[in-house]
Amino acid sequence: MQESIEQYMHTVGQQARQASRVLSSASTQIKNHALSAIYTALENSESAILAANKNDMAKAHNNNLDSALLDRLELTPTRFKGMLHGLKDVIGLTDPIGEITDLAYRPSGIQLGKMRVPLGVVGMIYESRPNVTLEAASLALKSGNAIILRGGSEALESNQAIAVAIQHGLKTAGLPESCVQVINTTDREAVGQLITMSEYVDVIVPRGGKGLIERITNDARIPVIKHLDGNCHVYVEAQADLQKALPIALNAKTHRYGVCNAMETLLVDEKIADEFLPRIAELYAEKQLELRGCANVRRILGDQVKPASEEDWYEEYLGPILAIKIVSGMDEAIDHINKYGSHHTDAIITENFSLARQFLARVDSSSVMINASTRFADGFEYGLGAEIGISTDKIHARGPVGLEGLTSQKWVVFGDGQIRQ
Amino acid sequence: MQESIEQYMHTVGQQARQASRVLSSASTQIKNHALSAIYTALENSESAILAANKNDMAKAHNNNLDSALLDRLELTPTRFKGMLHGLKDVIGLTDPIGEITDLAYRPSGIQLGKMRVPLGVVGMIYESRPNVTLEAASLALKSGNAIILRGGSEALESNQAIAVAIQHGLKTAGLPESCVQVINTTDREAVGQLITMSEYVDVIVPRGGKGLIERITNDARIPVIKHLDGNCHVYVEAQADLQKALPIALNAKTHRYGVCNAMETLLVDEKIADEFLPRIAELYAEKQLELRGCANVRRILGDQVKPASEEDWYEEYLGPILAIKIVSGMDEAIDHINKYGSHHTDAIITENFSLARQFLARVDSSSVMINASTRFADGFEYGLGAEIGISTDKIHARGPVGLEGLTSQKWVVFGDGQIRQ
Repeated sequence: MQESIEQYMHTVGQQARQASRVLSSASTQIKNHALSAIYTALENSESAILAANKNDMAKAHNNNLDSALLDRLELTPTRFKGMLHGLKDVIGLTDPIGEITDLAYRPSGIQLGKMRVPLGVVGMIYESRPNVTLEAASLALKSGNAIILRGGSEALESNQAIAVAIQHGLKTAGLPESCVQVINTTDREAVGQLITMSEYVDVIVPRGGKGLIERITNDARIPVIKHLDGNCHVYVEAQADLQKALPIALNAKTHRYGVCNAMETLLVDEKIADEFLPRIAELYAEKQLELRGCANVRRILGDQVKPASEEDWYEEYLGPILAIKIVSGMDEAIDHINKYGSHHTDAIITENFSLARQFLARVDSSSVMINASTRFADGFEYGLGAEIGISTDKIHARGPVGLEGLTSQKWVVFGDGQIRQ
Repeated sequence: MQESIEQYMHTVGQQARQASRVLSSASTQIKNHALSAIYTALENSESAILAANKNDMAKAHNNNLDSALLDRLELTPTRFKGMLHGLKDVIGLTDPIGEITDLAYRPSGIQLGKMRVPLGVVGMIYESRPNVTLEAASLALKSGNAIILRGGSEALESNQAIAVAIQHGLKTAGLPESCVQVINTTDREAVGQLITMSEYVDVIVPRGGKGLIERITNDARIPVIKHLDGNCHVYVEAQADLQKALPIALNAKTHRYGVCNAMETLLVDEKIADEFLPRIAELYAEKQLELRGCANVRRILGDQVKPASEEDWYEEYLGPILAIKIVSGMDEAIDHINKYGSHHTDAIITENFSLARQFLARVDSSSVMINASTRFADGFEYGLGAEIGISTDKIHARGPVGLEGLTSQKWVVFGDGQIRQ
């Protein structure tokens, strides 16, 4: 069995590599034609896909999966429409492939530039949500990449049903069906193969819990575009304009709780704490937030604030809990963020120009903000059109990753017979 | 012993991480000051460094190391001057750090841009040449990165002597000495530690033989900017201008043999082979090249060409040998390059506009050229100022890698109190 999974995955990999050669030079017109054909195929298979999802849901109920997972797994007619809507958006995105930039003459007479090209083959590993199957496939196609999809075992039937429609669309447009392949086994060995077949797969994109992502990163022999935690900070500096600080500190925490760009720790300068803390605490009380603070915060706000432990500074609560710390100034704030943070998104609220510049230079995070809510750190707000994920890595892609994250640049040289002297 | 190497490397890593926090926000002025102080310190320690190198050379002789390695190891007064000259060049390079680009307003009112930042800590693993110690250290410093250097055991004394001067210069400029650390043990376990300490090291740059690089890539738990082979092609298309094709095919192969951007296989369209091959073979004969060709090439050129085996198409000769193949046209040429090549640098010689465009789009190499010699693919010719290496990867850095390869971009957001709706 072990060996047959290995053989199966290598066949999948080989087919993906071959398909990627065709896709990489497919015109925008052909790629959009395929995406439109997939749209039609999906419309026509709505009932089949929803029926497959009902089977997955029934199995998941029988296996006593928790309600959060069941919610993510379910495809309702409304969610199905949302999926199709997302596909329309991808069709509308500008094709990044083939763009040539920085074309300029060198002293030797050659003309040198950079051309945007697909990465080749993407391996995607994800859990429960079947809509990721379409989302990832459409972004990969648009950017000229073949993709191998490995969804969660709980969504197997849903994912296979969506795959059938996708492959039907690819065929209609004359592209190889193996541009998009959905792994048809739930054997874990398939993941082990996928993340080590460096001859067939160019990049791995995992989406799911931290445990999954850490496991994949450890075992992969292929670059991984990954996202671990979002432990984001807002630092209310001594010269903050409270008319900005109050709404931002409220919005960054309470606009949505379960998202990676939500603030998890609020840092307040000691010079402004007496004025700021009671006012923001009042707003948080209305939202019934649980506050955990350092001793100095508790001195000001009293017992409505629980004592924060060392672990709290590392925590990504993803819920209605907030850690608060009073800091002596800029240096302590930055040291705290760089030490305890996850290098995701961190903001300073200040009117001081020089301090703002310093914060920008010294905070080592994928998004650094001045006088704005951390909640802005996402692909849609950044105008990327669609988001593959948010990367907390520094190599290749950082922060919200759009279509560009699935591309690379090669050098192009135009000459009239130049030779090296 | 094993444990003490582990402890030693973790101390080195920790110190590098701390130093990188200081360096990452050091001004251009301070970094250039440090580089100038290193220049002076090196000038003053020339005799000590050359003496250390003499010791390394003596040991290498005793160990019967081969002459190529001895040549790379040796530091003559002329080479020492060359090293200092390279350092001057790095001082003159534009500081990439802090550059903000693409700053534009989003519909929400936030202003979004990208800021160039250092990667953090670079781990460099290399063989024999002691000048790499200075080159890598100066490029890392200029781009705001701390660096951990692990040179070959045969160059240990030379590298340590250079390190002393570097650290003296850092101290003079008020920067932490641990910005540049040279590993003082030749134990292999140190490399094992270096390439897996992901908490302290952000990127690994290996320089050396293919074996070394493959080993490091396999074992690393940190992204590697790597360079494997340079199996480069020139494809003389049917509509090539022979006044361009002849000098390019000569230059790409014979300008220098031991370099990764030299042509190793010449592809010739069957429609032009009878005319082109005898003329280029005459030029190659003057250079006493050994030619290995397919059966069709031998039909035209006869016994002056040895038969090429399947392995020859994969070979990076790095010497006066050339493989030649006749192809039926564009498709066969591109398939050959994508299959047997190393995705380094490949050129087409043609006057046909549409075929040139097709070649550009479909050849999957880090540099793709039209009517120019593959020998142009290097950091100096591309105007990068200095070259960390040439990457055959697609992720992060591709082709010649300059200072920018040691940097990343973070998102920056400027607001006046914007919150997410």
